[in-house]
Amino acid sequence: MPPPTPFFPLPAMYKLVLIRHGESTWNLENRFTGWTDVPLTDTGVAQAQQAGRLLKEAGFEFDVAYTSVLKRAIWTLWHALDQMDRTWLPVVKDWRLNERHYGGLQGLNKADMAAQYGDAQVLVWRRSYDTPPPALEPGDARSERGDRRYAHLTPEQVPLTECLKDTVARVLPFWDGVLAPAIRSGQRIVVAAHGNSIRAMVKMLDGISDADIVNLNIPNGIPLVYELDADLKPIRSQYLGDPAAAAAAAAAVANQGKKG
Amino acid sequence: MPPPTPFFPLPAMYKLVLIRHGESTWNLENRFTGWTDVPLTDTGVAQAQQAGRLLKEAGFEFDVAYTSVLKRAIWTLWHALDQMDRTWLPVVKDWRLNERHYGGLQGLNKADMAAQYGDAQVLVWRRSYDTPPPALEPGDARSERGDRRYAHLTPEQVPLTECLKDTVARVLPFWDGVLAPAIRSGQRIVVAAHGNSIRAMVKMLDGISDADIVNLNIPNGIPLVYELDADLKPIRSQYLGDPAAAAAAAAAVANQGKKG
Repeated sequence: MPPPTPFFPLPAMYKLVLIRHGESTWNLENRFTGWTDVPLTDTGVAQAQQAGRLLKEAGFEFDVAYTSVLKRAIWTLWHALDQMDRTWLPVVKDWRLNERHYGGLQGLNKADMAAQYGDAQVLVWRRSYDTPPPALEPGDARSERGDRRYAHLTPEQVPLTECLKDTVARVLPFWDGVLAPAIRSGQRIVVAAHGNSIRAMVKMLDGISDADIVNLNIPNGIPLVYELDADLKPIRSQYLGDPAAAAAAAAAVANQGKKG
Repeated sequence: MPPPTPFFPLPAMYKLVLIRHGESTWNLENRFTGWTDVPLTDTGVAQAQQAGRLLKEAGFEFDVAYTSVLKRAIWTLWHALDQMDRTWLPVVKDWRLNERHYGGLQGLNKADMAAQYGDAQVLVWRRSYDTPPPALEPGDARSERGDRRYAHLTPEQVPLTECLKDTVARVLPFWDGVLAPAIRSGQRIVVAAHGNSIRAMVKMLDGISDADIVNLNIPNGIPLVYELDADLKPIRSQYLGDPAAAAAAAAAVANQGKKG
């Protein structure tokens, strides 16, 4: 018997590919990273290359690529494009795709913080929609306010901490002003970004509530493919490759903040 | 005795950095490359990283980087920027910075061709200003006319062969239309490109004659720094790092076309 045919198969007008960067040195060390600009590990490079191979094998073509101004996302994109033999594609880098700023937690170990403050507090810091971690002092050496890559921003635009709501507040204008118009114009785009800048987009695309977004985890280095209708509403979405591997990788992200 | 002080030291308004890509697999195999998109060797990666370290140690800062649409130049730029901790800089990729198209010689061994046709003929093909190598047939599998990265060009813009004069004819409009306005606007730029697209710029900048340009060789992976006056005329230029190493590397390039 042939598989059932849906009565009204919805036509996908557009595809959108999101990739969270591969494992970074601070993912490996289980440290809060935020805007700290740490490199990929060898595992992270391999994940990025595998993402590119998956996209190539699935026949994806892109016209322009987007990433943050943080090297773990940039190198993830570069390695993926190289595997697709598409290093020549234009790449747009924008701070609004950066990871959520982790404030005073940047550099600290997640399990240490869980041992000190409890799993529940760390989960609030990691996943609460509107409670930010403690802010960096403006004079803290970890602050990015003196970094040349943000010199075109006002000091207030360079955060001292962010909750996901704050990240959403900068990611959505980038979606509305840059990504959505590019998609509507027919450009096939790939976005290499971060756990929380991708969660911000997924929340918007899938209409996930402030309460439910806490349970969404984005695995490292696995392309997330959205099929969108003419209004850029999702028809379906899936991780490329082995679904069990994507689920296991997402669960590993969820467990990073536990005393373990 | 202190070194003599020039009476009228000319003020440099601008600096411009040009980098020929590091060693590619076909440099290593001594094959004519042209527009064929071959990767860097491990040596080429190391050269690119060393170029970045030299620029960082010399205190260079850039606002925007330019490269071709060929991966040996793109990866050279990426590795150099990474060593400078400047992966986040905007990068513009343009086909007009590509290597000279080598026509029907693309893929063939330089020493084999010298053995077959003589050193003199190969030197003409490699360095004559206005005699191109034999053209590719339009249907040759090596032709780039079906390559998506050139789809925005007319077929006639995608060469089947080029002499240096042809390369100059596409590089100079890119200089006049893109690089020179960027420099004049105060942007500090670095260009990672190819032996012949860089020779085209050096010929123009230094006013080298059609006859003398044959003797100019650009070493792989060594930053060439121009100091320019307000009219973008060179005040001086030099390779960063050890001058003897740059001279030896340029001589090695000159000798590639010999039977050896």
